[in-house]
Amino acid sequence: MPDKDFREILKKVNQFEIKQDTDIVELINSLKDTGFNAKKLALACEIYYEMIKDSDCVKFFGLAGALVPVGMQKVIYDFIKEGYIDILVSTGANLTHDLAEALGYHHLQGNFESKEIDDKDLHREEINRIYDVYMPNKVYQGIEDFVSELEIPDNQMSVSSFLRFLGNQLPKDSCSILRICSEMQIPIFCPAFTDSGLALQLGFHHQKLNLNHFTDMLEMVNLAWDAKIAGVCIVGGGVPKNFILQSLQFSPNSAKYAIQITMDRPEPGGLSGATLREAISWGKINETARYSTLISDATIALPIILWFLKNKNKIKN
Amino acid sequence: MPDKDFREILKKVNQFEIKQDTDIVELINSLKDTGFNAKKLALACEIYYEMIKDSDCVKFFGLAGALVPVGMQKVIYDFIKEGYIDILVSTGANLTHDLAEALGYHHLQGNFESKEIDDKDLHREEINRIYDVYMPNKVYQGIEDFVSELEIPDNQMSVSSFLRFLGNQLPKDSCSILRICSEMQIPIFCPAFTDSGLALQLGFHHQKLNLNHFTDMLEMVNLAWDAKIAGVCIVGGGVPKNFILQSLQFSPNSAKYAIQITMDRPEPGGLSGATLREAISWGKINETARYSTLISDATIALPIILWFLKNKNKIKN
Amino acid sequence: MPDKDFREILKKVNQFEIKQDTDIVELINSLKDTGFNAKKLALACEIYYEMIKDSDCVKFFGLAGALVPVGMQKVIYDFIKEGYIDILVSTGANLTHDLAEALGYHHLQGNFESKEIDDKDLHREEINRIYDVYMPNKVYQGIEDFVSELEIPDNQMSVSSFLRFLGNQLPKDSCSILRICSEMQIPIFCPAFTDSGLALQLGFHHQKLNLNHFTDMLEMVNLAWDAKIAGVCIVGGGVPKNFILQSLQFSPNSAKYAIQITMDRPEPGGLSGATLREAISWGKINETARYSTLISDATIALPIILWFLKNKNKIKN
Amino acid sequence: MPDKDFREILKKVNQFEIKQDTDIVELINSLKDTGFNAKKLALACEIYYEMIKDSDCVKFFGLAGALVPVGMQKVIYDFIKEGYIDILVSTGANLTHDLAEALGYHHLQGNFESKEIDDKDLHREEINRIYDVYMPNKVYQGIEDFVSELEIPDNQMSVSSFLRFLGNQLPKDSCSILRICSEMQIPIFCPAFTDSGLALQLGFHHQKLNLNHFTDMLEMVNLAWDAKIAGVCIVGGGVPKNFILQSLQFSPNSAKYAIQITMDRPEPGGLSGATLREAISWGKINETARYSTLISDATIALPIILWFLKNKNKIKN
Repeated sequence: MPDKDFREILKKVNQFEIKQDTDIVELINSLKDTGFNAKKLALACEIYYEMIKDSDCVKFFGLAGALVPVGMQKVIYDFIKEGYIDILVSTGANLTHDLAEALGYHHLQGNFESKEIDDKDLHREEINRIYDVYMPNKVYQGIEDFVSELEIPDNQMSVSSFLRFLGNQLPKDSCSILRICSEMQIPIFCPAFTDSGLALQLGFHHQKLNLNHFTDMLEMVNLAWDAKIAGVCIVGGGVPKNFILQSLQFSPNSAKYAIQITMDRPEPGGLSGATLREAISWGKINETARYSTLISDATIALPIILWFLKNKNKIKN
Repeated sequence: MPDKDFREILKKVNQFEIKQDTDIVELINSLKDTGFNAKKLALACEIYYEMIKDSDCVKFFGLAGALVPVGMQKVIYDFIKEGYIDILVSTGANLTHDLAEALGYHHLQGNFESKEIDDKDLHREEINRIYDVYMPNKVYQGIEDFVSELEIPDNQMSVSSFLRFLGNQLPKDSCSILRICSEMQIPIFCPAFTDSGLALQLGFHHQKLNLNHFTDMLEMVNLAWDAKIAGVCIVGGGVPKNFILQSLQFSPNSAKYAIQITMDRPEPGGLSGATLREAISWGKINETARYSTLISDATIALPIILWFLKNKNKIKN
Repeated sequence: MPDKDFREILKKVNQFEIKQDTDIVELINSLKDTGFNAKKLALACEIYYEMIKDSDCVKFFGLAGALVPVGMQKVIYDFIKEGYIDILVSTGANLTHDLAEALGYHHLQGNFESKEIDDKDLHREEINRIYDVYMPNKVYQGIEDFVSELEIPDNQMSVSSFLRFLGNQLPKDSCSILRICSEMQIPIFCPAFTDSGLALQLGFHHQKLNLNHFTDMLEMVNLAWDAKIAGVCIVGGGVPKNFILQSLQFSPNSAKYAIQITMDRPEPGGLSGATLREAISWGKINETARYSTLISDATIALPIILWFLKNKNKIKN
Repeated sequence: MPDKDFREILKKVNQFEIKQDTDIVELINSLKDTGFNAKKLALACEIYYEMIKDSDCVKFFGLAGALVPVGMQKVIYDFIKEGYIDILVSTGANLTHDLAEALGYHHLQGNFESKEIDDKDLHREEINRIYDVYMPNKVYQGIEDFVSELEIPDNQMSVSSFLRFLGNQLPKDSCSILRICSEMQIPIFCPAFTDSGLALQLGFHHQKLNLNHFTDMLEMVNLAWDAKIAGVCIVGGGVPKNFILQSLQFSPNSAKYAIQITMDRPEPGGLSGATLREAISWGKINETARYSTLISDATIALPIILWFLKNKNKIKN
């Protein structure tokens, strides 16, 4: 016999209806009474809404995957601008692509399934492929020109300080993640910064540069330590996921809210696919936390969550 | 050098914006200018819309996966009622669960991640688990009672004829898939019918029953043969996917429109994960077809597609 | 506090060594002291070995996925010949491809990644693709010729009786699954038989055929009922998985041993990806069973398991 | 019509046999004539063998995923010791766990499926979970004690120089990756070093430490530049994959051999799941390269590849 009567926590699956005039808040509310990933998407929306309503909650956002190239730059920009992110941890790639867009370059899309575009032909035409999204190599030239002229104030500044400096150099009207974070003083951490096209160009042109990665690491630990309440949204996994969670492991308050959106699977043991529940054993997520490990392409889930938050937030305020 | 200049088919990725008053048609239109599965979702919506606007198109819909238990019964019911499905091919399980709901039983939901519910405890309480959805065993008793009293008109009728007969026995006001298909004379094919709880109860109580599966198979081939234009929407894969496609292989007109929604992957070679493009080699899908192989949990994608169709259809008419 | 001290069930991970003269039995023994899917593969080997050593165990084997086309026909043939399978449940596709090989036709392989072969070109050359394996369309002609001349003894025989008859018509020296099962009187069940190229040709040429699928279903229930001890090996999932498990659900003795090899994932709720543990709630697998849900391409796992069994069996006898 | 006759590149699928006395080299040779991931595993073995036979080839090895905790430390150690790796790029986690084992600590294994171990209970007992592998928290104490006493020669040395120094501090007889790389002068790069438990302890106890990540980045670019021929083996993906490939992008000679072992999928656009073919468009892998993108848990594939190499190498020499 189970410790407590589990039948109490079971409730009826609702065979919900979608009407023409259904709105996004209604849809998500309906999905909450289902199961599988529809329910997990609804939970992710609900948990994120709780995070933004909890005024003590520091919202950590981990960003991995090619979200800027695929067209989600403005979605992430809006998460920041609306105040849904307090601390951003990103791969270097997303920042490199964000810089490219801020400098006026674009990414391209095509039809992968048509197979009319062979990678060998792309190579000859100097166009780089990211699944069904493309970036001409010449973008690197633009980044190089921009980077080579930077007058970096301190060769030993932290990566996050450098990224704040960098954001301030970008055009004011761009919908750049780097730019908006600088303006709003949202720190961006990038633990694997040298694993990026941006860092390569920096290294080639600023040979005395030694951005202090340990300063970032300790700052992040302090931010986690100081957070009265911590909330986490992990997109994709990777280094950003671990960097956020390792900081929370050493803080007195592990995460009270947690969302992960990934397509990786847990059984091979890699961190990107690990369930959020696993993080409870480490003390990274709290035993009493609300969490949702959503198995979905982030390009589908993130716009829906943003759309939900923009509407639910308006309704409730 | 490529045969034609592929740079012509590349276009700018649009960094789209989600506003509070964005509607579902706008959202999908925005996603079409991105990539990865967001774009494939948008393509799936667009292709389905073309299918329903093409008056010559016969729409084949393959249904696998536990969609009725998880709360998508009304969604599928609406696809049928709105005229978005002409021929349904289903697993036996979805029909068994549809019957259960039509008879007044319900499925239950819980929190899988909480792990408070152990499968051993569930077994002792006679509650069957489908990931994070549950069905009490007593539902089978209800199905048995219903099935045992059926007066089946012909022991050698086809499975689809039997399913039409069955639908007519169900309460008129239920949102049952079986019922609405009978009312609207939409054929339901179920090639693996004996692989279901419904068929087991039938077999136990009607021992002379020998529903003719070959009649169904040949009828399906004829329906594919007669379709001036064929459109296909595959949910999950499995037997319904193959049954639809094998019929199209022998018809003069392979599918002009095709959508697949699955979480399976192509590399291990199984049909459920195979890309739609592969079906072109078989002559099941036309060389010139529009198609989208969407990697998503159907519980997220199907409601979105329905919502889009209901709105886009209204706007355009 | 946990009910029992879980630290007792934790043991040291062994950093094992692979030497040049390591043999397969040693390798599997080493992997058993690791984790992730390496350990699950080792458990699958061990559990299968227990099944064949347990003289009361009836071994059910579910076969889905394109294993015959990809070159695993002889591997499955050997599982049968060695006595490792008592009851086979298969998709119709594997039987169709088995028949093709038995009639002297072959499948082809190429390099999918090279992309030199476009599906449109394949279609024009009448070659069907299964990921990176190919079958010329003319094979169907050969199957048609063979099937059209069959003198089927009874139009209302069960599918399994028909398959036994069919196996007996095949060349004696072929390594056919159909042939060896007929010879060894191993029943083959194929619940979705009409979902196959073989059944299509049968239906075209034998229009009075109405193979009784319900007879198979009830026979399978009886076989499960009569099994003093049941063991299950599921390859791929699909209808074969459910057909075996639904029979065990209604038997007094649920499975004591269970192995599943799949690449599908559990979260979207489909049966193919469901963990074996879930089947405990249904009473299909016993609470006390040993089981391993292995996430691996079966083309890697099955040859290793067979190789292990052939060696371990020799050593221990 | 295709440019060249693709039928020439198609050949017969071989229905291979596994005998009791089959050895690993025979098995892999047999799998090469099949398809799906069995064939890709065989190709991975063959390509790695070519890499080690090509005396001009510099072999880059990217290591992500919890391979040391799960029991693959000695396997990787042997890859190094046998001369199969020239340059190692690793996550910080694998190095942290390698250090723990070198200091005499162990990882633990249990049975995840049994679910007898709840993450909440684990947390109370201070045991951290990695799927079905466990590490007691006290290991961190041991690492802290060790790290706090290190006398680091230069606060601004590169990460790889520090790791070489660290390896030299470890017990001579340990099967440590850090130790053997130091002994054999194999460089270890770790671009996301501050994203690890090891770096956290370093940062807490050596507050002036500012390991120069840019030095590593440029060294890696030089190593790629200087490689007459480059070969790549990627385990899991992540930062190690990108760090190797971004260096090759800027070298005159892109990779001539490439292997990737991952369970991630390509469609969501993340780098870990991207096919190796995609890297051709970037100029990271050569148009004429031999490559194999193997979809498998590395815990199964890596031991098999090592076992093959140890045997094939002996046979041929």
